[in-house]
Amino acid sequence: MFVLVNLKAYDCDATAIARAAADVADDSGVRVAVAPQTADLAPVAETGVETFAQHVSPVDHGSHTGSTPAEAVADYADGTLLNHSERRLTLADIDGALGAADRAGLETLVCANNPEQIAAVTALGPDAVAVEPPALIGTGTPVSSADPAVVEGAVAAAESDPSVDVYCGAGISTGGDVLAARELGASGVLLASGVAKADDPRAALEDLVSGL
Amino acid sequence: MFVLVNLKAYDCDATAIARAAADVADDSGVRVAVAPQTADLAPVAETGVETFAQHVSPVDHGSHTGSTPAEAVADYADGTLLNHSERRLTLADIDGALGAADRAGLETLVCANNPEQIAAVTALGPDAVAVEPPALIGTGTPVSSADPAVVEGAVAAAESDPSVDVYCGAGISTGGDVLAARELGASGVLLASGVAKADDPRAALEDLVSGL
Amino acid sequence: MFVLVNLKAYDCDATAIARAAADVADDSGVRVAVAPQTADLAPVAETGVETFAQHVSPVDHGSHTGSTPAEAVADYADGTLLNHSERRLTLADIDGALGAADRAGLETLVCANNPEQIAAVTALGPDAVAVEPPALIGTGTPVSSADPAVVEGAVAAAESDPSVDVYCGAGISTGGDVLAARELGASGVLLASGVAKADDPRAALEDLVSGL
Amino acid sequence: MFVLVNLKAYDCDATAIARAAADVADDSGVRVAVAPQTADLAPVAETGVETFAQHVSPVDHGSHTGSTPAEAVADYADGTLLNHSERRLTLADIDGALGAADRAGLETLVCANNPEQIAAVTALGPDAVAVEPPALIGTGTPVSSADPAVVEGAVAAAESDPSVDVYCGAGISTGGDVLAARELGASGVLLASGVAKADDPRAALEDLVSGL
Repeated sequence: MFVLVNLKAYDCDATAIARAAADVADDSGVRVAVAPQTADLAPVAETGVETFAQHVSPVDHGSHTGSTPAEAVADYADGTLLNHSERRLTLADIDGALGAADRAGLETLVCANNPEQIAAVTALGPDAVAVEPPALIGTGTPVSSADPAVVEGAVAAAESDPSVDVYCGAGISTGGDVLAARELGASGVLLASGVAKADDPRAALEDLVSGL
Repeated sequence: MFVLVNLKAYDCDATAIARAAADVADDSGVRVAVAPQTADLAPVAETGVETFAQHVSPVDHGSHTGSTPAEAVADYADGTLLNHSERRLTLADIDGALGAADRAGLETLVCANNPEQIAAVTALGPDAVAVEPPALIGTGTPVSSADPAVVEGAVAAAESDPSVDVYCGAGISTGGDVLAARELGASGVLLASGVAKADDPRAALEDLVSGL
Repeated sequence: MFVLVNLKAYDCDATAIARAAADVADDSGVRVAVAPQTADLAPVAETGVETFAQHVSPVDHGSHTGSTPAEAVADYADGTLLNHSERRLTLADIDGALGAADRAGLETLVCANNPEQIAAVTALGPDAVAVEPPALIGTGTPVSSADPAVVEGAVAAAESDPSVDVYCGAGISTGGDVLAARELGASGVLLASGVAKADDPRAALEDLVSGL
Repeated sequence: MFVLVNLKAYDCDATAIARAAADVADDSGVRVAVAPQTADLAPVAETGVETFAQHVSPVDHGSHTGSTPAEAVADYADGTLLNHSERRLTLADIDGALGAADRAGLETLVCANNPEQIAAVTALGPDAVAVEPPALIGTGTPVSSADPAVVEGAVAAAESDPSVDVYCGAGISTGGDVLAARELGASGVLLASGVAKADDPRAALEDLVSGL
């Protein structure tokens, strides 16, 4: 299982969470990554944790003021989220950003709302996809119990390309949620507030991987 | 005069240019700042150069994956560009981003195409405005000679708020261009390829401030 | 006073409301216009009512599939809204759409959230501006009583160009609201659900103009 | 074969072209449709020609000023283009607009750049897809001769759902281009300037269907 912690634009201590995630990954042997804000990529990567960007632009080097080029991100990060429900891209731009990320050597993880959209993004050849029903994001109600069919549907929808991993997100916060996700066929989870807003992020991370 | 070097998404050595800019600022006493890609803000700021973001989002902390919150940027940068012609914002978002930048303690510089738009953004209360006719960006033909009336028009348009500085951009690359901009009433210049793509960025910076 | 009824994407009988508005305008001598969905411009204009578009694109004729060119709109409409809070435009596109609308002979009415933004859009030279605090839209609480200072502030902000009319919107539904708006210095009102969702749109329109 | 004429934002006589298209369809027995600007849907539909919108919004009735709701379009049109290269949508909005169009009873035709994107949109369940390499749009060089592999690739990519028709566009202007498209497996063509900017649109339409 893969545990990806998205720090969004939260007011949190990104490097402290990154250090905790690196330690938990080391101690447990579970793959854990952190996706900080773009400005925090460099200090987060310095902690040694596996680092993801939250977004990259579908552009190569050039006159693109205010963009987030994959090449610049790749100096610090190992991979990137794309098309998160809070940062939707056009279909053509998902395709373009996947190309830019590949050229820069970034692992790619494309988010989508439902199994149909998961099938669509799988056709574009990402490394992984993540299904996150928007209505459940930030609720604390895990998608694995609130809507298990959407996770199973996503797993089925991505079967057209066996090289594509399927993760699930929305409402994940406990080790039990992670096990339930695995039970439904997911090979990873995305979460955000469950760690970033936890009183003790390290303890939250330890709980997440405890059953694996 | 203020010289702001926008590194856009160029393939350049951001920290080397930053160190050169810091040295030139020290040696000449002229205010020089560098605006790197967001991912490079931390290492650029470490050089000690005055650092600008290329963009910040009109949001505060929260669920805004893939945004560029002013609060995160302010951990590294002193100011920010807004509404560059390669990253246009809605009027409401310029207003919102100015508020977010103010709360985070960032100096604000809003770009616009022509004197009418300069008058409009001046009404929103930024620290500075910059007029950059899109047709001249990246041409090597300085706005100060190609279209001096647009610079004078911008200076006049911003007079409704004497606390707002007026800069000009597009095609600036030499010390002569900087002097011509000052002659037309501008108190600073924006440039990009003239430094970032120069064979010797340090020499280009030295030339820019040589007449001041 | 000018009364502009925005039909948004409501499920309503656009031509019936248009006929009622034309009658009420004729009977009362008050200027009343209707802004239907783009697809309904032709049948609404045929009723003889003064017709506004809800939006036009900042483009002239050309390869712009799915846009709303001012030239095409002007075959049916007399004017257009721009930058409604549900259809925000970049500052450059407000400027561009104003130019396109002028060339097509459309009267222009630019919406904004607050007095600062009203000052900004006034600088771009529209025929009129409308202040609509987003928090009050659709509430039934009229801006004229909930936040009279924002209306007075908008009137003051637009004084830099005496040729620009100032309207107000958000929560307007009765003749009393219209009188209150006039009292605060507005020369017109925008409303939507107060007429479009009324059980009897004609009666709602008659009430709106009853005190004028 | 299906021939769809997209009038974009061209300066052309939409109803005259619509009448010619209706006549050519009647005379030849070939299915011919016209996609005018939204404001022209009503008069174009009145000619009796099969009418497509150029775009619909991913919304139902409600507070969506300046949108193009499928419900309003369906009062006049039979179908709609979606995601044209000049009007790109997010993946989530393509999904949403397909749902809105279905509920309104509109036939759906989703455009995309290349076979990978065709596979992606096919997964969302449209009635038809159209591959249009952006580099060839408006060139007069037909995709069927400039890049036949992209047409064959699109046909193969859509085979996962046999109910989905595959059309091709970009550079189509003659009856020979239509035959070449059919030869490559397409069951229809999209074109724009080849008819809309022709000196004699009726003759251009007659030529297009002459070999079928």
